[in-house]
Formats: sequence, structure tokens, C-alpha cells
Amino acid sequence: MTATQRCQVVVVGAGLSGLRCADRLRSSGLKVRVIEARDRVGGRTLSRRIGTGTFDLGGQWLGPSQDRVAALARELDVHTFPTFHHGRRVLDHEGRLSTYDGTIPKMAPWVLLDVDQALRRMSRRLKHVDVEQPLRTPDGAALDGQSLESWARSTMFTSSARAVFASAMRIVFGFETSDISALHTLFYARAAGGLMPLFDIENGAQQDRFVEGAQSLSLRLADRLEGHVCLDSPVTSIEHRASGVTVRSTHHIFEADAVVLALPPALCGRISFSPMLPSARESLHQRFAMGATVKCMAFYERPFWRERGYSGEVVCTDGPVSVIFDNTSQDGGTACLLSFVVGNDARRWSSRSLDERRGLILAQSARAFGPDALKPVDYVEHDWCTEPFSVGCPTGALGPGGWSAVGDALRSNIGRIFFAGTETATVWTGFLEGALQAGDRAAEEVRAALV
Amino acid sequence: MTATQRCQVVVVGAGLSGLRCADRLRSSGLKVRVIEARDRVGGRTLSRRIGTGTFDLGGQWLGPSQDRVAALARELDVHTFPTFHHGRRVLDHEGRLSTYDGTIPKMAPWVLLDVDQALRRMSRRLKHVDVEQPLRTPDGAALDGQSLESWARSTMFTSSARAVFASAMRIVFGFETSDISALHTLFYARAAGGLMPLFDIENGAQQDRFVEGAQSLSLRLADRLEGHVCLDSPVTSIEHRASGVTVRSTHHIFEADAVVLALPPALCGRISFSPMLPSARESLHQRFAMGATVKCMAFYERPFWRERGYSGEVVCTDGPVSVIFDNTSQDGGTACLLSFVVGNDARRWSSRSLDERRGLILAQSARAFGPDALKPVDYVEHDWCTEPFSVGCPTGALGPGGWSAVGDALRSNIGRIFFAGTETATVWTGFLEGALQAGDRAAEEVRAALV
Repeated sequence: MTATQRCQVVVVGAGLSGLRCADRLRSSGLKVRVIEARDRVGGRTLSRRIGTGTFDLGGQWLGPSQDRVAALARELDVHTFPTFHHGRRVLDHEGRLSTYDGTIPKMAPWVLLDVDQALRRMSRRLKHVDVEQPLRTPDGAALDGQSLESWARSTMFTSSARAVFASAMRIVFGFETSDISALHTLFYARAAGGLMPLFDIENGAQQDRFVEGAQSLSLRLADRLEGHVCLDSPVTSIEHRASGVTVRSTHHIFEADAVVLALPPALCGRISFSPMLPSARESLHQRFAMGATVKCMAFYERPFWRERGYSGEVVCTDGPVSVIFDNTSQDGGTACLLSFVVGNDARRWSSRSLDERRGLILAQSARAFGPDALKPVDYVEHDWCTEPFSVGCPTGALGPGGWSAVGDALRSNIGRIFFAGTETATVWTGFLEGALQAGDRAAEEVRAALV
Repeated sequence: MTATQRCQVVVVGAGLSGLRCADRLRSSGLKVRVIEARDRVGGRTLSRRIGTGTFDLGGQWLGPSQDRVAALARELDVHTFPTFHHGRRVLDHEGRLSTYDGTIPKMAPWVLLDVDQALRRMSRRLKHVDVEQPLRTPDGAALDGQSLESWARSTMFTSSARAVFASAMRIVFGFETSDISALHTLFYARAAGGLMPLFDIENGAQQDRFVEGAQSLSLRLADRLEGHVCLDSPVTSIEHRASGVTVRSTHHIFEADAVVLALPPALCGRISFSPMLPSARESLHQRFAMGATVKCMAFYERPFWRERGYSGEVVCTDGPVSVIFDNTSQDGGTACLLSFVVGNDARRWSSRSLDERRGLILAQSARAFGPDALKPVDYVEHDWCTEPFSVGCPTGALGPGGWSAVGDALRSNIGRIFFAGTETATVWTGFLEGALQAGDRAAEEVRAALV
């Protein structure tokens, strides 16, 4: 058995949130160790060199008002470039294709009006959302008591409008609208500064990409932690006392003054705590499920869709693909269409053969852009539902009743156990920016408790 | 390290479902081992001798149409007796007490009519519910897309009716109506043969009690398994191959031909599977949260409420107590009022001091039955949310969208991994009867696969 090691703070999880937290704590002079279950850092970011570019199999975008990420990228000398978005977009809805310029798809005017009034209604509500304590939002409990689908049914009059709305939300959360509390949706959008920033490329969360890949942020932060990151070490148990904590992984035993769990709540639930955590926190682990997202990239000799005036963006409401983006490398040398399979389609994705999956992806692109899409030079996909140390992507969410039942427990430390991870953020929760904000907050809490 | 042991089937979980499954498999001549995390058998049943009676800290009732339990009780020579229910009942609703005879509380007639039409509407729907595949129920997907609270809001016109309905459902599930899919509610009630059997004492699920306590069923089944039950052994990992399985607990390594997980889905999620289970099953573990129930028993010298014409039953819609029952021992020698704290009140229960908890319980009984309730000779409570190997009670449930997302994965074996546990039952799911039915089904599946 390994000898017990001693440090001041153990951070569990070497995703961006955990590494940021550790970096901050180290800057304050604390002795920190980061313990990570996987054989790599970066959590839900994972970048791979393909052709002339670096491509992200996980989180990949950066948008305006994500100031912490922008500052960190500058600090670490990580470069960004704009997501390609020029040209006509495609909507594949109820079996019919249509193309459009700008942001408003070609649909029957009553459908457009119906979607528009719903988005306006939600945006008006957003102004009053309390991101720190969402239940304090006006009508908070009633909004939490219903699914986003119920809200959509009571707000939109046409099934077409509801289908477009559901599709957009499915892409954002990796959940069906039935799965999420209406209040959680408002909380999430408010944390992003509004609904449109969630959907948009330009001026939105998909505006820019990282030349070296989003994982480079974590890789460089880990470099700064000079070998204080232990990989391949799933944490199995945490003993917590008034005087300190004992953190056991498959390879280590650490005695520390505090532990930060920089993990999604669903993964916190796999650690055995002694004594057991309070009921509300335990229940949070059971109820903060992860969304489901699969990223599928088809690589081509040329971005042939651009040549035909397409931006590469396709919104598909009929599944299994939900959205396609142009994901060509910065230098233009490696053309790529990135398809997202999300929600219930993603939960069933791995039960299909690779051939079938590839066929479905290429067929959807060919529907939009013609038969050239059927002949990629390479096909790469990443299914985050099948990663044991992610169990889903992009983020966790609370279903109906969740905020009322267990919301209080999301950020509150339990003695010497503190919580980071983008799920605990109040600014851009679910995004890289949220990971950093949560890491900063947790570091601040630990410092206040220890120093 | 312990040497590897070999058997044909490992059953994980020595609750009633796992023990029944093991008993059946052993009768077919298979070599079986049961591995249990706790230091006892019985799962969510736990009986304790207090005064002149045996009292159940967990599941405790038996009702008509629960034929497997009745037959097993006869077989094991376990005796039952009727739950006391004679006299006036009390409703404590919106700060006002009222008493009533029979099953219809004294409320404004429009409220009674409102509750009645909702229950009738639900009962009509029940006839068409497909318990094997609930999504095949007419409007199944739409019913699954909404919380029971949304259904109640769209069905009942008065807030009083909704409060009474929510209170009844909270007692049944240990969940708020916001937390449960409307379709799940229908599935659960259909499996019980109707709504009223869920609520009622006479002719319902609360009709009879076990003289020796409900745990005696498991204790006697375990005796029959002659030392083939390993206690104190939480299973940590399961490796599964085409040729067999390797089950590791903190104390054992078993090589077997098959494994049966007789655990609620939420607890299956704490085991590390290699290879990882299919996405839909993994996601099921994340989404099938456990209800929250605390049982609080106050013991008295005499059942003084009976002397005043009360049955002991109190339905409280205002919380934190949701319902009280007369729970006096069969011989009448140990008088007891049993209070249930459920749902969100139960999730916060353990954050109060024992003094405060006891005070709240006794105050509620005193409101209904007078100050004699304030002077018990003993007070015993059991909070199932704080049991690490239950993480809630009485049962797990799917929130909105759950059946659509992961319902398929609930009962389906994954190669040599089979699933039992009352959550997987189609008859009286959530009850002892469901535990037995699920154990029988899993045993049948394993036999078909191995023999």
C-alpha cells in the first residue's frame, strides 16, 4: 500500500475548473495536489491534431463576455480565431430543406411569430432570474415544478414552433425539453447573459475557436503545476473530519486540510464519503444528471459547401443529427463538417455500429450539401456518454423539482469539502468560462477557510 | 488479497428481491452467492423488537393482490395481522383540523369534487397503461414529458385539491409531484392495480402488518441459503465478458457465469463496470433517483387516541409530517403512532437536531390528538436518506422525460448482467411484492441463459 502523503488542499478533477482552482491556491502559497481519474488533463475538453489543424472532440468555443477564458488564453499564449459562418444556412425541418441568410430561417410566418413570442417571453423572464438562488426568481417554484416541454406547450401554439424550439434547446443542453426544469433553463440562460448568446455563432457562445484546441488551456495550466497533478487515479473515498480530510484514490492516500471536488455532481456521487454527506447533497448527486452529446467530424479535401455559398450550418429538427457546423482548420487546409448528435439520439448512438453511425452523419450532410458529403477523407467521432469519467456532456442539469429539492446544496461547502466544476458556476455555467468562475470561487472559499 | 472464488451466479444485494432470486436459482440446482454491502439482510426492510412488539423501521405492510408476499409469508411461517383503522380520521389542511369517518374527508364540496374528478380521470387513463412498456400507453410520450405537478395543474381547478393530491402522492413516492413524470405515476399505479390501493389501509397496500416484522421474510430466506450470503461486502467493480463475469467486493473476488444486480438503479451507478455499460443504462442510473422517507415512531403507555374514537390516521398537507398511522403492536401492549416525513421535508430532516425533530413529530400528533401525545415513553426514527446503501426510500422513480430517454434499459439484461430489485417490477413495483416478482423474473432469465 502507498504511503500517506500530506498536502494542504487536494483538488479532485484536472478539468479546467480543478486546474484553475489549484493554480489560484498555489499562487496563494498553499501546497496543492490535483488528482485525476483519466490519463490526461482537460476533462470535457480534448484536442487532437488531424491534418493541418487541431480539432476539439469536446468543448471548443469561446464567445464575447467570457472574459476569464479570454484573459487566460492571453496569459497562456493560446490563440483564437473566428468560427466560419459566412453564407447561406440550412434548416431541415419536418422532412423539408430550406436555406436562409441571416438568423431567421424560412418558415411559415405564423411559426416564426410563435417562436419569436416564446423567445421574447422567456427573455423578459430572464431579467428577473436570481442566478445565485434561482428559487427566489418570481414564480420560481412554479417554474421549477414544470419541464421545459410543459412550458413550451403552454407558450407556443404550433407544433412546428415547439419542434424548432426543442431542437435548439436539445443542442444547448444535450437534453430533451422534457428532461429539464423550466427554471433550470432560465438559470442557465441568465448565466450566459441571455438566450441568443447560447444559440449564436457571431456575438454568441460559438463565436471563436482555439487554434491549439481548447484542451491547451488545461495542458498549460497543468504544466504550471509542475508535476503536482496525479493522473490515472480515480478517487474512491473521502473521509472528512473537523480537523481534516483523507482522500483515497486507486493509487494514493492524501491527508489534507481541505478537498475541492471539481467534478460534475453525478460523478461526486460515485465517491464513497465517510461520514455520508447530508441528504440534500446526496440527493443532488442523484438528480443532477449529465446531458448526452456526441461530436462527429467528417473531413474533406475541400470545404466544398463554402464554394456553393453555404456557411456549413444546418439545423435539423428531425434527428438523429441536431446541428452541423463548418469546423475547418484555421489555415483552411483541413476541411471539416462537425455534426452534433444530442439528447435521446445520443443516448442510443453507441448501440449502432460505426458503419451505421458514419452513414447517418454523412447522409444528413449530403441532404444539405449534395453527394460530395458522402466521400470524406476521414471520419472521427467522440461519444461523451461512453466516457466513464464524464458520463455525459456538455453539462449536468436539474430536472423538474430539482432546484426546490436540492438546489441549496449545489455550491455550499460541507465542512472541509468544497465544490467547483462548471455546474456550480453562476456565470456561463456549463461552459469553459463557468469552469473558471467556479474554480476561482472555490479557491477563494478554501483560502478564506484555511489562511 | 483474497483468493478468487468460483460460483455460477452472483446476486448483488441481499434485499428481498436478491434473496428471492437466489433462492429460486438455488432450487434449480445452480451454485449461487449473494453479496451484500450492509451488515444485515433485508434491504429496505428492517425490524426491531421494541416493548411487546416487533416494529418496522422500513417497509412494513402487505395488501390484497400481493399474492407472492402472502404465499412466501405462509411458506416461511411469518404471520400477519390487520392494521388498526377503526374510528375517526383527521385531516390537517391549510392550518385547519377536521375529522371524518370513512374515506371522504370534510372539505368544501367543490374541493372534494375537484379531487374526485382528477382521481377519476387518472383511473380512466390507468386502464390503458402498458406496464411492460409505458411509452406505448396512449399519449405516453406527452405524459412522460410533464411532471405530475403539471398534470395536476392542468386537471384540478382549486389549489386546495392540488395540495391534497400532492400530499397523497408525496406519501406514496417520497417525492414531490414536481419530481415525477406523469407517465411514471400511471405506470406505478397500474402496477398496483389502481390508485386507491396505493392510498388505502383496508383493501389497500397498508391493510396488514407482519407480526415478526417485514424483515423476517428476508431473514428466513437467508437462513435457507445456508451461509451463502456474504455481508459487509460492498461490490466495487464488475468485469463482464462473453464468457463470464468477475465481481469484486471490498472482501471478495468471484468468477461467475452471470451476475444479478438486485439494487435500485441509483446504487447500480456506484459500481464501476468494465467495459462501461451502454449509454442508456448508464443514463438510467443517473436519472432513477430515490424518494426520501423518514419513519418516526412515538411509543406511549396506552393508545389514548383510540379511547377518544380516533383511528390514529392523520393526513397533514402542511408538513413536515405528511401522514400518521396507528402502529400499535399486535397484542396492544406497545402503543405507537407512526409519522412519515417524506419528499423535500425528508431531504432536510437530518439537518435538524434530534430534539427539534422529536418536537415537530410530537407537536403534530398533539395537534390531532391532544397533549397526551407530547409525553411518549420512547421515540425512534429511521431516516433512509442517510443510509449509504439505500440513499432513499421507499423506491426510485423517473422524472419527466425519463421513460423516453432510458426506460428501455430498466429491465433488459446486458450480456451476463441481469437486473432485479422492486424498481424493475411490473406488478406492485416499489413494494415487497414487486421485489419478489422482479427476483422471480431475473431468476427465470438467468436460468434460460445458463441452463
